[in-house]
Amino acid sequence: MNQPQDSEAYKAKKRFFDSLMTIYGRKTVLEALQEKAVSIYRLHLANSNKRAEILDQIIELAKLKGADIIYHERNALSRISKNASQDQGVAADLQLPGYQTYEQFLATPPKNNYRLLALDGITNPQNLGMIIRSACAGNIDGILLPLKGAAQIDPLVIKASAGTLFRAPILRCQNLVDALKDFSRHGASLCALSSHAHHNLSGFRPEGASIYVLGNETHGVSDPVFQLCTEKIKIPMNNGVESLNVAVTAALIAFRDVM
Amino acid sequence: MNQPQDSEAYKAKKRFFDSLMTIYGRKTVLEALQEKAVSIYRLHLANSNKRAEILDQIIELAKLKGADIIYHERNALSRISKNASQDQGVAADLQLPGYQTYEQFLATPPKNNYRLLALDGITNPQNLGMIIRSACAGNIDGILLPLKGAAQIDPLVIKASAGTLFRAPILRCQNLVDALKDFSRHGASLCALSSHAHHNLSGFRPEGASIYVLGNETHGVSDPVFQLCTEKIKIPMNNGVESLNVAVTAALIAFRDVM
Repeated sequence: MNQPQDSEAYKAKKRFFDSLMTIYGRKTVLEALQEKAVSIYRLHLANSNKRAEILDQIIELAKLKGADIIYHERNALSRISKNASQDQGVAADLQLPGYQTYEQFLATPPKNNYRLLALDGITNPQNLGMIIRSACAGNIDGILLPLKGAAQIDPLVIKASAGTLFRAPILRCQNLVDALKDFSRHGASLCALSSHAHHNLSGFRPEGASIYVLGNETHGVSDPVFQLCTEKIKIPMNNGVESLNVAVTAALIAFRDVM
Repeated sequence: MNQPQDSEAYKAKKRFFDSLMTIYGRKTVLEALQEKAVSIYRLHLANSNKRAEILDQIIELAKLKGADIIYHERNALSRISKNASQDQGVAADLQLPGYQTYEQFLATPPKNNYRLLALDGITNPQNLGMIIRSACAGNIDGILLPLKGAAQIDPLVIKASAGTLFRAPILRCQNLVDALKDFSRHGASLCALSSHAHHNLSGFRPEGASIYVLGNETHGVSDPVFQLCTEKIKIPMNNGVESLNVAVTAALIAFRDVM
């Protein structure tokens, strides 16, 4: 029997499932399970999988980590992985220390002057992975990642993140505009990176919480998001170069205080 | 009749040919010719090419830019492009403002406290392209690129450089160790980036010329090069991240003074 959607039990359950990251692909799942910090809630396998050594390894690790192991019809597995052509009959729901909804982050931010990256339409998985790697290594408290209109966590992203995805602070949101409005109401400065801006990054030193918005690889920050941003800044460039790779821009922000 | 190899005429000719960058592939050559700053010395075409609109465009632009247009047997063209499987019957010798041998750079450096990146075994073309893009946009006076043991200029590199390759200061060398020794004799500080180093980048502020050595994506700076470097520095990282993408590291160096 379903619980009513406004009950505390339903909300708690929804919070729990929202906090899981589902990944797929045999090598990807195996490598994830080999990371100490990674907990696994459920391992999903297709009934149609033939015996394979890598599957044995995955199942063994999942058991060691206390996961439920569930076998599905092929179609049902595809609905879980959302990528039938690349899941190779394997998906896993991971519990990751840094993966949460932005609402959870806002409820208990780690500090007052937190610094976030917000990704507005980043579509290239390698860029997303590199951004995660640099943000995780640098001074960034969270990466605001919309569930739509952007590259999603997939094996390419995980590879480009060099495994840092599993410990990176990733804040999911349904819609970036709504989430940014919410952060703004809570006092965060919203700052769009744009090569057309008049002010340089070096002059922007917010004392409170700040969110740096990085836009699509070709089109930059989208109009509705740009309108919300009270700060627009650029990184000065030589030799008539018009733009930097978005992952490079993310890294310059993440490391600006340790250069 | 060949000139003796020590004659002034021979040396001048060699200098000229060393200053040419040969690229290949139809789209790559077309896009290069569409860049204003790009001069073309020779356009090479395979006899076997069938008529195609893009070839007409290439030939028209090459004529406008005053290039010699030379038709070759297919095998001869492969020897020029050095990449028979991807040249698509087209190669071009370009004259680029920033492309030179390191000896030419050393003979007339643009300033006393020049700052270079040296690439020691960078094998991923996307990384090479991104490094070129960031270096060209940032405060880097040259990219020291060995002719062997590293990714070479190819269509993937050009794409990842977002066209900046054609104006980037690229200093070719036959052998990185020899070139670095030469720079050291001329007073440049040699500095290896290494995640195992004890000193942070932020503490390294050389007053004179400096060369930052970036190593292979997996193995880092090679032993013989590492031995030459009197400075070893790291970029401090959070969350147990062990290394940054090499193109990100390059960007942090290129932009360290404008953050």
